[in-house]
Amino acid sequence: MSILQDLTEVLEQRKRQRPEDSYVATLYAAGNNKILEKIGEEATEVIIAAKDAEKTPESKQELVKEVADLWFHCLVLLASNDLNSDDVLQELAARFGLSGHDEKAARPSQTHVPTE
Amino acid sequence: MSILQDLTEVLEQRKRQRPEDSYVATLYAAGNNKILEKIGEEATEVIIAAKDAEKTPESKQELVKEVADLWFHCLVLLASNDLNSDDVLQELAARFGLSGHDEKAARPSQTHVPTE
Amino acid sequence: MSILQDLTEVLEQRKRQRPEDSYVATLYAAGNNKILEKIGEEATEVIIAAKDAEKTPESKQELVKEVADLWFHCLVLLASNDLNSDDVLQELAARFGLSGHDEKAARPSQTHVPTE
Amino acid sequence: MSILQDLTEVLEQRKRQRPEDSYVATLYAAGNNKILEKIGEEATEVIIAAKDAEKTPESKQELVKEVADLWFHCLVLLASNDLNSDDVLQELAARFGLSGHDEKAARPSQTHVPTE
Repeated sequence: MSILQDLTEVLEQRKRQRPEDSYVATLYAAGNNKILEKIGEEATEVIIAAKDAEKTPESKQELVKEVADLWFHCLVLLASNDLNSDDVLQELAARFGLSGHDEKAARPSQTHVPTE
Repeated sequence: MSILQDLTEVLEQRKRQRPEDSYVATLYAAGNNKILEKIGEEATEVIIAAKDAEKTPESKQELVKEVADLWFHCLVLLASNDLNSDDVLQELAARFGLSGHDEKAARPSQTHVPTE
Repeated sequence: MSILQDLTEVLEQRKRQRPEDSYVATLYAAGNNKILEKIGEEATEVIIAAKDAEKTPESKQELVKEVADLWFHCLVLLASNDLNSDDVLQELAARFGLSGHDEKAARPSQTHVPTE
Repeated sequence: MSILQDLTEVLEQRKRQRPEDSYVATLYAAGNNKILEKIGEEATEVIIAAKDAEKTPESKQELVKEVADLWFHCLVLLASNDLNSDDVLQELAARFGLSGHDEKAARPSQTHVPTE
């Protein structure tokens, strides 16, 4: 299983069990608007971190962290809509002609170089 | 190889070869600000699509497409900073205690259920 | 009349008359989502311009232009919701204890220094 | 003096005096990135409020509040760059052919209906 699939499983668990000390459970409880506010916030922080990385390339790890934050909150948004990262990855694969992929079955990839 | 890794390879190719008819090559040529504008745009469209999905659940596929757009432009941003999706996934794995993952080596996962 | 009030009047006119060659009329016709996408885009451009102004202070005029773009599209959003800039200014005045203001009646201001 | 000019004066005062209990002084002290994060947050909240207003028109006052928040943080951003709302309004007036305006001098307006 990939990291995204592991994370998806964690998020589904949090949605079902709503443990009291879970940040994710807090987000689900706060509702859609709160999750969307986080998407907006994290996208803003990605942009700011990328601008800062122009000046100080050593701060690229900050950019990685902000993209991780953004993707994480996208995963929460997907889960709260009964969607998951596989839906997004299949959409990307279809666009780029990355046929042969089946992330769920974890078949070995036979992808040819896509032509975009 | 995962879809994200395939995509990363495509994006690296585009960065090196800059084919004239490639949208990605156009983005790289336009520079960092253009890529960041796209991140802001796509995050906005994710938010709008998620609000529309509240009213018309059948429009969830639109939300999937918008998240795909957002992630795709994040991949472009990462590539233009000589980073890639593995950096982000490793960051997420580390946060969630998803040890044992090594996407690059594609070792079989031995992840235990994370406690968050 | 203030500039914001003049602009409000222009926007109301465009909403009623929908002249074919008007950018504003195009926005109204495209609908709420298009206007909101512009809000997200322009906010992103404000952020990017402000980061660029850190490095090159002579580029501050660009920041002024981006804030103007953002405010302008906010005015369009307000008009499309049958609201206007006075509603926003009254809200700001109320928060900051700027009593005595009545922009609509254009009474002379007797505002005392607010204490925030 | 207009509400925006009053607010500008308040913000300039906060910048000079930095009173300990002032939210604005806290923002200045936190620096440019913090102010820009607020711009991104407030733009997101405007978008969410506008989508909610589609469903429940009685919630339009919420939209007014969110636009007020966004404009307010734009004023803080302008002040921290030694700019102010008059710079933005003059830019808008120039674009829309709203000549004859001189907000600083508060001359009576002789604006003709602009043609856009």
